[in-house]
Amino acid sequence: MDVSYSRTDTALLLIDPYNDFLSEGGKLHGLAKQVFDATGTLDNLRRVVAAARAAGIRVFFTPHHRARPSDFSLWKNASPYLLGGDRMQVFAEGSWGGEWHPDFVPQEGDVVAKEHWHSSGFAHTDLDLLLRRHGVEKVILVGLLANTCVESTGKFAAELGYHVTLVVDATAAFTREAMDAAHKINGPTYAHAIVATANLVQALAAPAVLEP
Amino acid sequence: MDVSYSRTDTALLLIDPYNDFLSEGGKLHGLAKQVFDATGTLDNLRRVVAAARAAGIRVFFTPHHRARPSDFSLWKNASPYLLGGDRMQVFAEGSWGGEWHPDFVPQEGDVVAKEHWHSSGFAHTDLDLLLRRHGVEKVILVGLLANTCVESTGKFAAELGYHVTLVVDATAAFTREAMDAAHKINGPTYAHAIVATANLVQALAAPAVLEP
Amino acid sequence: MDVSYSRTDTALLLIDPYNDFLSEGGKLHGLAKQVFDATGTLDNLRRVVAAARAAGIRVFFTPHHRARPSDFSLWKNASPYLLGGDRMQVFAEGSWGGEWHPDFVPQEGDVVAKEHWHSSGFAHTDLDLLLRRHGVEKVILVGLLANTCVESTGKFAAELGYHVTLVVDATAAFTREAMDAAHKINGPTYAHAIVATANLVQALAAPAVLEP
Amino acid sequence: MDVSYSRTDTALLLIDPYNDFLSEGGKLHGLAKQVFDATGTLDNLRRVVAAARAAGIRVFFTPHHRARPSDFSLWKNASPYLLGGDRMQVFAEGSWGGEWHPDFVPQEGDVVAKEHWHSSGFAHTDLDLLLRRHGVEKVILVGLLANTCVESTGKFAAELGYHVTLVVDATAAFTREAMDAAHKINGPTYAHAIVATANLVQALAAPAVLEP
Repeated sequence: MDVSYSRTDTALLLIDPYNDFLSEGGKLHGLAKQVFDATGTLDNLRRVVAAARAAGIRVFFTPHHRARPSDFSLWKNASPYLLGGDRMQVFAEGSWGGEWHPDFVPQEGDVVAKEHWHSSGFAHTDLDLLLRRHGVEKVILVGLLANTCVESTGKFAAELGYHVTLVVDATAAFTREAMDAAHKINGPTYAHAIVATANLVQALAAPAVLEP
Repeated sequence: MDVSYSRTDTALLLIDPYNDFLSEGGKLHGLAKQVFDATGTLDNLRRVVAAARAAGIRVFFTPHHRARPSDFSLWKNASPYLLGGDRMQVFAEGSWGGEWHPDFVPQEGDVVAKEHWHSSGFAHTDLDLLLRRHGVEKVILVGLLANTCVESTGKFAAELGYHVTLVVDATAAFTREAMDAAHKINGPTYAHAIVATANLVQALAAPAVLEP
Repeated sequence: MDVSYSRTDTALLLIDPYNDFLSEGGKLHGLAKQVFDATGTLDNLRRVVAAARAAGIRVFFTPHHRARPSDFSLWKNASPYLLGGDRMQVFAEGSWGGEWHPDFVPQEGDVVAKEHWHSSGFAHTDLDLLLRRHGVEKVILVGLLANTCVESTGKFAAELGYHVTLVVDATAAFTREAMDAAHKINGPTYAHAIVATANLVQALAAPAVLEP
Repeated sequence: MDVSYSRTDTALLLIDPYNDFLSEGGKLHGLAKQVFDATGTLDNLRRVVAAARAAGIRVFFTPHHRARPSDFSLWKNASPYLLGGDRMQVFAEGSWGGEWHPDFVPQEGDVVAKEHWHSSGFAHTDLDLLLRRHGVEKVILVGLLANTCVESTGKFAAELGYHVTLVVDATAAFTREAMDAAHKINGPTYAHAIVATANLVQALAAPAVLEP
């Protein structure tokens, strides 16, 4: 891998690590389970987060809006996809499904951005501001789903001028085709690096990261 | 089709209708030619634009940056995809390839937004402002490419609160798989309507458009 | 007054109605007290909010970031003004000063936007999205301070295409000169209407508002 | 002055240096002439630009929209101020008044951002993108007018996380009161440094700038 990451210029964006996605019994877990299991998503997420923390790379939580019953009752132009999530009350506020998966709970020094309403972690949130205020120029994206929130966050990051890294096996989707679309078709049109967890973990342990 | 469009709330976004995409001999034309021909892209674009004009729906040109030789010489974090376009000098300023295809030249009353540097017609341009100033709430996206500029523009439009319509055969891509990813995998996660030219042309001729 | 407001197109933005500003003993109350008293700010805010509610005009709370001790420890380029607020822990999270003034607590049907870090209620928040999703095109700005958060929110609103109304006596500042700068020097360069509470209350009771 | 500027992190934003502002006979020149003459604006602008160029600090032109006769005919919510500029056709496209003042013409290596429609050089333009792509974190603002485009650009810059320097005598306004409002009342609420040309020129000649 010919990309290097430094603790002073890189952040790990941990996207929507909620029980509803990542835990058995979560509202969306079943839909992604086949890809989760084939990909080893959960274990790879653990490895990436651990490697980032070990390298002193800051973790930015990039959370989806937590559903409330009346959110969209008066909204103009809510899309079918938004309304579907609303009907299911995905990541419902105050519910177990809307809590962080127990292995991905913010720790001292992490940053938690404002919740995003739709797909991009940057849209109508303070994620860009918080990244800039910490001097971040490179973002590594992991979490859910590869072709929705991860891809939209990545596309916005690229438009904003960030260096964007996707990690093909530290994410998931509802189908294998959606994973391939995210990483083989669309990723190359905006990302700077598309890597596997094993390679990323190795890069994060390299001197460029470990020595200021 | 259960969507209706009115001349007061709808705009047609015509994305990157340059010779380099749409005309024989254009720098990117060959790469998309197989999909163009199978899809009937050029003819469908003509039909959609004509139907929009006939219905009094305003056309907003949403143009990609026209390349200049030194654009990215000093840029931080230009992506491989941006640098590839730069090397080819796609839509080069002052060149034939960077001119509008002769069938898609702005007419009296059309609006031309500022050029976008990357993929989304909304990023760092005045497209959102111009649409709002004209009272637009619904956008119909046609042009090139389905999985890059059209999709990014659509995703940004959805985040901004617009009602988004994709037209599956008034666009193109470099592969059939990229077309499918745009319309069958990703489109349903943000778009409000995904239609064919024939249906759209019919909807645009309906009373909801033609009266008031 | 030749502006009319309708319940379907207008919102009242209630900016930073915290105890630290509005209540005796609040951290910033003393600094603004002279202007408060001369202007009748608190009573005028009550009248405007009551008139808006009576007219069916939705109230959007536009809250400043609630301070936490470590907010800026690692920020690049925090301004002296931000750092000053940080040292005072203005609107501190979990404190009485960071609670809504008891007369301005969100009610059923109100909307509460995300907190803003600096001065503009639109910067890095979902205020614009929430207004658009409710069909709002006109915003009436009241709250604190006239030349900081109210003015910045107004300037951003104008750039975004909203119709902007300032209410000269339903706000305050640390000096009379700052009030005049906001309403006589800068307001006219971006606002559409600059009115007094009495006139606004009258306009809000007019048929254009009361009858859809 | 305890601020230092480096050629790698600083840009000079030259705001609206048009003949209509800066040249005898320009449409707005007369309105600002009293302040121009008392302040020495034109000469100070020359000194700041020369000092920036000598120090290797990049100049970013931040230009106002050049008026065209039909710009606002269909716009919703155009403000009285915008409409006033429109009636006067300030900085008219293709006119002498809309040309750069002859002493402030872009040179090789300068960057010209997209035109802004209203007051902030950042609103609906690519200024932020271009600054980030060049690694800029500090902006020095000069040009016209102190309380409109300069102030709005500065407020947006602060919200975006930039370090902001105002130069009190390398700008102008229609009244002395507007100058004071910009520099004594509002500037301190968002800017990091508020300096005079003489001090800035000295700081720009310091080793921090001259030696990478």
